[in-house]
Amino acid sequence: MEKAGLLPLRFLEESGTLLLVDQRKLPFEEEWFDATAFDDLLFSIKEMVVRGAPSIGVVAGYGHALNIARRMRQGASLPVIEADLERLLATRPTAVNLQYGARQVHKAFMQALSEHSNSNANTNANTNANTNANTNADPAEAALKEAHRLYQEVLDANYQLSNHGLSVISKGASILTHCNAGPLAACGYGTALGVIRAAHYAGLQPQVFADETRPRNQGRLTAFELQREEIPVTLVCESMSGFLMKCGKIDLVITGADRIALNGDTANKIGTYNLAVLASFHKIPFFIAAPLSTFDRVTTDGDSIPIEFRAEEEVLTFDGARHAPPGVKAINPSFDVTPSQLISGIITEKGILRAPFQESIAAALSS
Amino acid sequence: MEKAGLLPLRFLEESGTLLLVDQRKLPFEEEWFDATAFDDLLFSIKEMVVRGAPSIGVVAGYGHALNIARRMRQGASLPVIEADLERLLATRPTAVNLQYGARQVHKAFMQALSEHSNSNANTNANTNANTNANTNADPAEAALKEAHRLYQEVLDANYQLSNHGLSVISKGASILTHCNAGPLAACGYGTALGVIRAAHYAGLQPQVFADETRPRNQGRLTAFELQREEIPVTLVCESMSGFLMKCGKIDLVITGADRIALNGDTANKIGTYNLAVLASFHKIPFFIAAPLSTFDRVTTDGDSIPIEFRAEEEVLTFDGARHAPPGVKAINPSFDVTPSQLISGIITEKGILRAPFQESIAAALSS
Repeated sequence: MEKAGLLPLRFLEESGTLLLVDQRKLPFEEEWFDATAFDDLLFSIKEMVVRGAPSIGVVAGYGHALNIARRMRQGASLPVIEADLERLLATRPTAVNLQYGARQVHKAFMQALSEHSNSNANTNANTNANTNANTNADPAEAALKEAHRLYQEVLDANYQLSNHGLSVISKGASILTHCNAGPLAACGYGTALGVIRAAHYAGLQPQVFADETRPRNQGRLTAFELQREEIPVTLVCESMSGFLMKCGKIDLVITGADRIALNGDTANKIGTYNLAVLASFHKIPFFIAAPLSTFDRVTTDGDSIPIEFRAEEEVLTFDGARHAPPGVKAINPSFDVTPSQLISGIITEKGILRAPFQESIAAALSS
Repeated sequence: MEKAGLLPLRFLEESGTLLLVDQRKLPFEEEWFDATAFDDLLFSIKEMVVRGAPSIGVVAGYGHALNIARRMRQGASLPVIEADLERLLATRPTAVNLQYGARQVHKAFMQALSEHSNSNANTNANTNANTNANTNADPAEAALKEAHRLYQEVLDANYQLSNHGLSVISKGASILTHCNAGPLAACGYGTALGVIRAAHYAGLQPQVFADETRPRNQGRLTAFELQREEIPVTLVCESMSGFLMKCGKIDLVITGADRIALNGDTANKIGTYNLAVLASFHKIPFFIAAPLSTFDRVTTDGDSIPIEFRAEEEVLTFDGARHAPPGVKAINPSFDVTPSQLISGIITEKGILRAPFQESIAAALSS
């Protein structure tokens, strides 16, 4: 396989600086956003400077680790750090990777804190994190180390799942995808686009139809990423998917995911459910590609997945320019849930999970 | 019922001027486009200054009548007029009302020409229309009279079908519609929106979800038209329809039509087919509202309906502003065909046609 592609973040180890490529400005400008300060981190996730479940997860991990180090230098107490964590977790409710990334880092931090506390019996580490910071930086270092590990885990998962996905791509396959699940979103080789890229480099000559993906138009990121590697891509409006399927132009559909419940129900960018219903109607395989960090280990089915509603302005505008009449209302659910019955398989780093999903998912998560 | 709404054309009888409200500029500017000159007429239809099957039909009727009068004044021969007619018919291939309007006017013209020719045995009216024009303006007048009659026919059909449609709307119904099928498109009270307006004025308090309808964004015309009458309307992206249906937010779907085959297969704005499949999956009624002039009396099924592909630039831009990366391709099918199996009923001025459609349509067209 080839290079990872344009990755969404750069962490500058020496200065402790977290830079994000501003995905709101791509593909026209490659501008880097400094998300080191905690408020800037929250802004970058909420406003989609960084987007895509795995990328958000990795950035949340680094962001939380940087904030832990900062708070410890300030002598803040543990409840302050935990309140910050809650603010971070609240930035976007649907993608579970945000929680996964931040909570894993927090766990590593707490673990180091407790170990350190045990070795310094005089210190009340549970109420005053600072006490440790003054004597030993280990807990903050442990948090950052875990952020690095998570990043590597995501990079590895991207490659592995992309490789597993090859088995569902036949030569010259025409693939419809929605939103963007390439390197920018997946923080690595790509998930849905990772599979497509792997197929391309394996000589399978895939062709891609990329949904424009209103209201945030992430289809152009997909077009941008595929075009960089000369993978044939055609941009289409969401309204055209049924037409293309009916004309026999689509061999399979692959999308990424923002959260997968234990029964396989999958939350992903609004419009994914439409594609799954249309694919089912046309008897076209419909695949999800996602790392195991996108699985919610607590939620049993899709009905319990919280759906983020974003500002109606996103629907009433296009790239910031108003197109709707004054006074008109809109709604803006950002995700939908595709029931597992409509999913042919979930491509993960542990292989392709298939029905019955409850069993195949449990096996993958426990192995 | 109340006023017709903002109609798409004004014909100034004395000066023989055909004015069209520029639907590309609504709802932000109400600008009138002079489509009197034949090239301007062709432009106005091709570039969607006027759009919506019934409106295109009426405008084509007037446009052809005006051109007949002009050509006769110039002393042009009949083949010249017929060549112009072909150019007019070629402007947009899918909406059958264009053909219906222009051909009905042409028929009236030919009829008058032949009657006049019979009463002037010395004139070869079949090869030189001018010969008649010099002695008698009747054929051109007959054409214009037919254009007027067609306009009135459409106005009447709008009212009648809207009234028939009332029977499918329950109190407080939440209705999803696609593209724009109100006064601007239907050249009268409206088709899909006519039914909704009739329900509103009958006190049924309908609520509307209006698809944005990329790439030409006609959803804003729907929002604009409904808002003028204080009918609650919420703008949504095409990607949200399945989500709304799954949440139980949609009681029925109604759209207009561009061409209906003799078996009920219906061509309409791209994305209509997606809604029909999604409605069927969710067991939600899916209705078409259209006058009988939208029925193609020759085409037996949807497979034979020509689908217009418009410039890819429409997909790559939004209101003229480029949003896709340079060099990216797009495709732009402007219509799709919904098979009659997915249609609960077709609301016409002769009542609601239901399956078996072949029979109900034949009966409506012959009565």
